[in-house]
Amino acid sequence: MQPVNLAGKLTQFDDYWSPRIVGELNGQHVKLAKLKGEFVWHHHEAEDELFYVIKGTLVIEFRDKSVTINAGEFIIVPRGVEHRPIAAEEVHVMLFEPVTTLNTGNVRGDLTVDHPEAL
Amino acid sequence: MQPVNLAGKLTQFDDYWSPRIVGELNGQHVKLAKLKGEFVWHHHEAEDELFYVIKGTLVIEFRDKSVTINAGEFIIVPRGVEHRPIAAEEVHVMLFEPVTTLNTGNVRGDLTVDHPEAL
Repeated sequence: MQPVNLAGKLTQFDDYWSPRIVGELNGQHVKLAKLKGEFVWHHHEAEDELFYVIKGTLVIEFRDKSVTINAGEFIIVPRGVEHRPIAAEEVHVMLFEPVTTLNTGNVRGDLTVDHPEAL
Repeated sequence: MQPVNLAGKLTQFDDYWSPRIVGELNGQHVKLAKLKGEFVWHHHEAEDELFYVIKGTLVIEFRDKSVTINAGEFIIVPRGVEHRPIAAEEVHVMLFEPVTTLNTGNVRGDLTVDHPEAL
């Protein structure tokens, strides 16, 4: 039981769209990620996903709208809902999601990370 | 699917040790709370609990040590582990824990909140 410093963990990696695991509880992971550019459209079949923006401005596109999430805000994307994160400038996020969650959900590709690193 | 602004939600209440629900996903609640003073010793039988400090400095006493959690840090308290949060000055926290979690865990008393308000 030690405190986890988000800023400190964020200095330990620089690549985009590759979440790192920084905590686990109740079958859920706490992850940190750096985002820049456009991700792929995807959904998660059985997992709701929380994005908390630490730094920057995240846009999440849905099929019927776009939502802007600023630093100090979070959004919950329910399971089954197609979405595409976009970061015009670098964004840092904390994610809460089940340990079963794959970053690209139902879509396998170059951005898929099967075994996220734990920091 | 709307962004939730933590600072905005925190302006909506002022009482201490009474968590408000601001999100739900995967059987977990996201809660916000303001803390000041000493809470009661307790544990949660079946729930791990995450405290993320938004503002201030939180101390959590365990039976064998104390841990200081500063703004921008979180700690995970595993189920079964006795703990007592202490806030010398006002502290704002975001909690992530199962929807079944009672704030005072195994100890009923004046500080118990059976039905936290949703904001």
